[in-house]
Amino acid sequence: MPRDAKATRQRLLTAARTEFARYGIAGARVDRIAAAAASNKAQIYHYFGSKDALFDAVWESLVTQVINGTPIDVGDLAGWAADLADIYADYPELMRLVAWQRLERAGDPPLPMSVRSVERNIDAIGKAQAGETVTDRFRPDIIFSLILHLATLWGDMNPDVKAAVELPDRDTRRSIIGQAVSRLLS
Amino acid sequence: MPRDAKATRQRLLTAARTEFARYGIAGARVDRIAAAAASNKAQIYHYFGSKDALFDAVWESLVTQVINGTPIDVGDLAGWAADLADIYADYPELMRLVAWQRLERAGDPPLPMSVRSVERNIDAIGKAQAGETVTDRFRPDIIFSLILHLATLWGDMNPDVKAAVELPDRDTRRSIIGQAVSRLLS
Repeated sequence: MPRDAKATRQRLLTAARTEFARYGIAGARVDRIAAAAASNKAQIYHYFGSKDALFDAVWESLVTQVINGTPIDVGDLAGWAADLADIYADYPELMRLVAWQRLERAGDPPLPMSVRSVERNIDAIGKAQAGETVTDRFRPDIIFSLILHLATLWGDMNPDVKAAVELPDRDTRRSIIGQAVSRLLS
Repeated sequence: MPRDAKATRQRLLTAARTEFARYGIAGARVDRIAAAAASNKAQIYHYFGSKDALFDAVWESLVTQVINGTPIDVGDLAGWAADLADIYADYPELMRLVAWQRLERAGDPPLPMSVRSVERNIDAIGKAQAGETVTDRFRPDIIFSLILHLATLWGDMNPDVKAAVELPDRDTRRSIIGQAVSRLLS
């Protein structure tokens, strides 16, 4: 792909991520995405084919970002959890996109690249359990799920809870998630 | 309110809960709700005023159900967490409604009745900490948030995780949540 085309495609992806995070898939407007990317609707259809396929591309780029940005460290699962919590703190759009995807794409088949990553992580936890460096109190897939879920604590509060909870600063949020995972696995 | 009117209103609320859980607020169709409730659009406007106000009524009934269905037990926070997990297992619509509300109503003011309930629960945890029956490892509002969040573990998995995780049966799910909270607070 020529450099200009690549840059346009990337600008469209970035604008689409913001639009989908705000309005969801059904609510997203292709013309707003085109305008925000200083492009036009024809370019969107040229590069992606449809609004739904544009969402697929956004989703795949997001999953890739999370997977590559936070490689598992079975020697320090608490630290890994804290890193995951940082990602959600730094990119609040992620939580919204994940939620829209689950609500509007409940019937989608899983993403093979992502399933493989999850399986590799679970496998790594299982091996660490076999080597007795990680507790076998929970099954490896349960440990993986618990860590992933705990890391989303701060992005997942509803307004009524937020109104009553004093949100700690980023470092404290990070350390609470690390501490919680340490306790779970100690 | 006469008995028939009360019954109609309740049928509309029930049908609306299903419709909003499936399609969200923007996507919900008042005529589908009316048909599912064996009623008509005029009745919806008569009893609730608008689609948005109908969602408000659904939301309030849902929050009331969760609050009344799972009173806190500071003597057994692990058991309380397990009860919360049961509610999400038994009413999968809840998780979807909570997610739609957060996405489509991010700017809504918190619900006073719900904030008061959260504050009472946090207060109860704080008193138990003062009486040294609950650990003070985490602040009381953090303990409350951690428990509430852990209880949603099973309803919050994305398809890629679900494809790789063997979902335990209801009793085991309940016991894992209880065990996780026990570890956090032990």
